[in-house]
Amino acid sequence: MVQLDDLDRAILRILKEDARLTISEIAEKLNRPESTIHFRIKKLQEKGVIERYTIVLGKELQPKALAIVYIQAETPIIEDFLERYIRHIIRTLALLPNVLMVARSGADGIVALVGAENQEKLNRFVDETIRVLPTLRRVEVFPVDEIGKGSGVVGFLVDV
Amino acid sequence: MVQLDDLDRAILRILKEDARLTISEIAEKLNRPESTIHFRIKKLQEKGVIERYTIVLGKELQPKALAIVYIQAETPIIEDFLERYIRHIIRTLALLPNVLMVARSGADGIVALVGAENQEKLNRFVDETIRVLPTLRRVEVFPVDEIGKGSGVVGFLVDV
Repeated sequence: MVQLDDLDRAILRILKEDARLTISEIAEKLNRPESTIHFRIKKLQEKGVIERYTIVLGKELQPKALAIVYIQAETPIIEDFLERYIRHIIRTLALLPNVLMVARSGADGIVALVGAENQEKLNRFVDETIRVLPTLRRVEVFPVDEIGKGSGVVGFLVDV
Repeated sequence: MVQLDDLDRAILRILKEDARLTISEIAEKLNRPESTIHFRIKKLQEKGVIERYTIVLGKELQPKALAIVYIQAETPIIEDFLERYIRHIIRTLALLPNVLMVARSGADGIVALVGAENQEKLNRFVDETIRVLPTLRRVEVFPVDEIGKGSGVVGFLVDV
């Protein structure tokens, strides 16, 4: 188990905000020597605490209308079919640019975060791509309106 | 509206994968002069296409059990109360480390991505922190198991 102290956490929080800051800028913010910051970041990378560095894309590339969709498959007579069917839907949805995130949800379900340019296109995507999938028992659509925490998630997930 | 060409998109895809690559490494990957890559990245930042640079935290810091929770409030007689109540719950949930993301969902609903070390702790969090909120009409919990697309999202959202 990774043990992090207050300095490690402070460095991680700063890098989460802005991963382009230099060692010397972080050292100054935290009032520590550059060598310490350099060593800590190296360790955090080696231990995999920092998995990777990435970018968050701006508002203009982000879908304006978002929803979480829960899909539940009809339970078939042959168990093995359900397993393969769920995996097939997940793979299919993962290929679509409107699908920002998709995950399995229990034995017979799937949850996805879907987005589109506007509400009308989002509704159409849900109606024409998701609701038409065969042998579904239930499709629930929860709009995602103002995001109160984790708002960067859309710019993180969106495809280019 | 921002216009992106194939080179811009190629640069963005590379930076999404690894934002620590140098200009010269990106130039080599894309077989273009460094000056071109430098100029393009500068423009992408200025135009806000690249909103910011960040880190994704590794598996060890990530919650092992995840779920999407939909909360619907009881519709009260006084409309104004609903509005204030929904905002209050969103603010409250946003402060909790178990809540990775929270958003408004329509007039009377909230959706949240919640996580914990294991399934038992997650269930306890949902039961003891969410289900006990007063005047709820409906709470639905959808487990998030294997993530098929967007798996970096947990390491992006997790607090340190």
